[in-house]
Amino acid sequence: MNKKAILLIGDGISTADLRYASGFSAPDDFIFMQFGDRKICSVSALEYNRAAATVLPGVEVFRSTSSHVETVKDLCGTLGVYEVTVPGFFPVGIAEKLKLAGIKVIVSEERLYPEREFKHPDEVAKIITSLRAAEAGCRRAIEVLQESDISADRSIIWKGKPLTSEILRTEVDCTMLRLGMLPTDTICAGGLQAAQPHNTGSGVLPADYPIVLDIFPRSAATGYWGDLTRTVVKGTPSDFMRRAYDAVLEAREFAKSCIKSGAIPAEIHRCAENILARHGFHTGHNDQGDFGFFHGLGHGVGLEIHEWPRLNPRTTTPLQPGVVATDEPGLYYPDHGGIRLEDMIYLRPDGTAETLTKIEDFFTIQ
Amino acid sequence: MNKKAILLIGDGISTADLRYASGFSAPDDFIFMQFGDRKICSVSALEYNRAAATVLPGVEVFRSTSSHVETVKDLCGTLGVYEVTVPGFFPVGIAEKLKLAGIKVIVSEERLYPEREFKHPDEVAKIITSLRAAEAGCRRAIEVLQESDISADRSIIWKGKPLTSEILRTEVDCTMLRLGMLPTDTICAGGLQAAQPHNTGSGVLPADYPIVLDIFPRSAATGYWGDLTRTVVKGTPSDFMRRAYDAVLEAREFAKSCIKSGAIPAEIHRCAENILARHGFHTGHNDQGDFGFFHGLGHGVGLEIHEWPRLNPRTTTPLQPGVVATDEPGLYYPDHGGIRLEDMIYLRPDGTAETLTKIEDFFTIQ
Repeated sequence: MNKKAILLIGDGISTADLRYASGFSAPDDFIFMQFGDRKICSVSALEYNRAAATVLPGVEVFRSTSSHVETVKDLCGTLGVYEVTVPGFFPVGIAEKLKLAGIKVIVSEERLYPEREFKHPDEVAKIITSLRAAEAGCRRAIEVLQESDISADRSIIWKGKPLTSEILRTEVDCTMLRLGMLPTDTICAGGLQAAQPHNTGSGVLPADYPIVLDIFPRSAATGYWGDLTRTVVKGTPSDFMRRAYDAVLEAREFAKSCIKSGAIPAEIHRCAENILARHGFHTGHNDQGDFGFFHGLGHGVGLEIHEWPRLNPRTTTPLQPGVVATDEPGLYYPDHGGIRLEDMIYLRPDGTAETLTKIEDFFTIQ
Repeated sequence: MNKKAILLIGDGISTADLRYASGFSAPDDFIFMQFGDRKICSVSALEYNRAAATVLPGVEVFRSTSSHVETVKDLCGTLGVYEVTVPGFFPVGIAEKLKLAGIKVIVSEERLYPEREFKHPDEVAKIITSLRAAEAGCRRAIEVLQESDISADRSIIWKGKPLTSEILRTEVDCTMLRLGMLPTDTICAGGLQAAQPHNTGSGVLPADYPIVLDIFPRSAATGYWGDLTRTVVKGTPSDFMRRAYDAVLEAREFAKSCIKSGAIPAEIHRCAENILARHGFHTGHNDQGDFGFFHGLGHGVGLEIHEWPRLNPRTTTPLQPGVVATDEPGLYYPDHGGIRLEDMIYLRPDGTAETLTKIEDFFTIQ
């Protein structure tokens, strides 16, 4: 008889494996154990009723009455488990205490649920729901920029007041909230802030500079994410940034044409990089920091915003049907700002690619 | 010379110690090491510029060029560190690889930054900002309920349509977004759903039953949380729930009068429990699950929504100046619904308590 169990502890919000395996998530950590065919959640009294009503079919719900360590020890005793396999992110403090209690703890070098990379149709539908909300948020941003004017000092003015990143973000996020999404660090970064890919943006948005709108809502109900980036200019962009935009758009579309079953992510990344370089946009590092295209081309999306596969120069495992990933080349120059354009792609069961993103590309907005 | 370092790895969003010590947070994990007077963040190229502009004074920012494990090994080599102290939640996978590389890994049984429990005035100000946003969200919910009508079948109707938990939550959350908050699982639970303290609520809200509004926004800018709960009824509550409300309010106010420097949380919790019992509201467990007052009276709030101190029956360490904590007794009955009333309290440097929450208590709304 198999005496080894998978053990997860977390909240199911930041611990996607836990939500995937149990169907449950909670504000506080809980325990999940998979032992042969048995799947067990052990949750606090506070969560018991809700967990029992929420878990996936076949998952048993127990009530934890002591610490996580004691509860796991009890579960192992009851089930006859003497060895647990845990993920690399498992808390070392609990792992050490389990070892002291005589339970062997194996840290898996592999993903425990590698099948998460390959989405079922119902998962794709959930991702699309979140992506559509991102698109609605993006449309709201475009609408606000269309309604805006440009002041004499080339600031963007909306409803008579300077339009800030914060105001624009709120408009995007409220639109998505109404669609059942949890907005999460929506990026509305303009001017030179957009040269930092993770800068969410702050202060008055300048005209004539690209504004990166990177919108990644998570469904409150399902936990699945959507991910979308558009870059727009209110006013007149510099020739440099106009050429950068065209190069990024070409790189994204060419990469998209390469994404199919059997394709190697590292090669697709390099294709995108080469297209940018051919347009004269090189990647490097100087006193001001990094410039050019210095992040991966894309990443899988599901119960995590960044999950497998990684479309970067180091990934040599061929893509397979079921993958949902982003295609998002970018160019960033501390003296000019930044451009990023991101679509989501799904590899259908037949291995062909489907672009899930439906919203058009915009650049200049009048 | 001290050759031991504190080592943290995380995103600074879910890893509050990291944000507290470095001043930085990011969507992806980064490394923080504290070695004597030196504090070092090692972040990806993607985050370097933003980190350098954001970290606390005195924190050095390095650029990670390899895996977390390799980066930590390099840092230890450069600094001459052979032993790292990590928190219990540190990832076991990284801990094991560091051990294999000859670095001693000590899992701290203690908090690494216990001073987080005692807030500086600027931290209290940040918490108050988030609490005020929660109050604004709560006022919006009250406003919506005031504008609502009750249908013949005793549903709540707003703007001609059934008012759902989801719609009410969106109104609360949009109000808070406009104030720079990240809304997080705002609870608007009515009817029997409110008998589950963490049920966020779904579907049409019924009249005559208490609606629990538990609102805990996090400032996008500072990372500090606010926490507020009010329970309201549109229509006419049952006598049972009216008595439960009065009992919970009395318990909260009495507990509040006990919260001061030197007080024992376990004793305050028991006082609240005794008041509820004296009103005939007992705590227990039956076939339907738990009923009565089955969670802790309160918890510290700061860079985590639930942090030290825990005001529950197990905490016997006296409260000290600087604590910011919630006081939130509740009563939950699967046949009746739930009541929870939550204020936030600050223990001033002189040891006296200040109620940070300013919004009044409401029960029935016409």
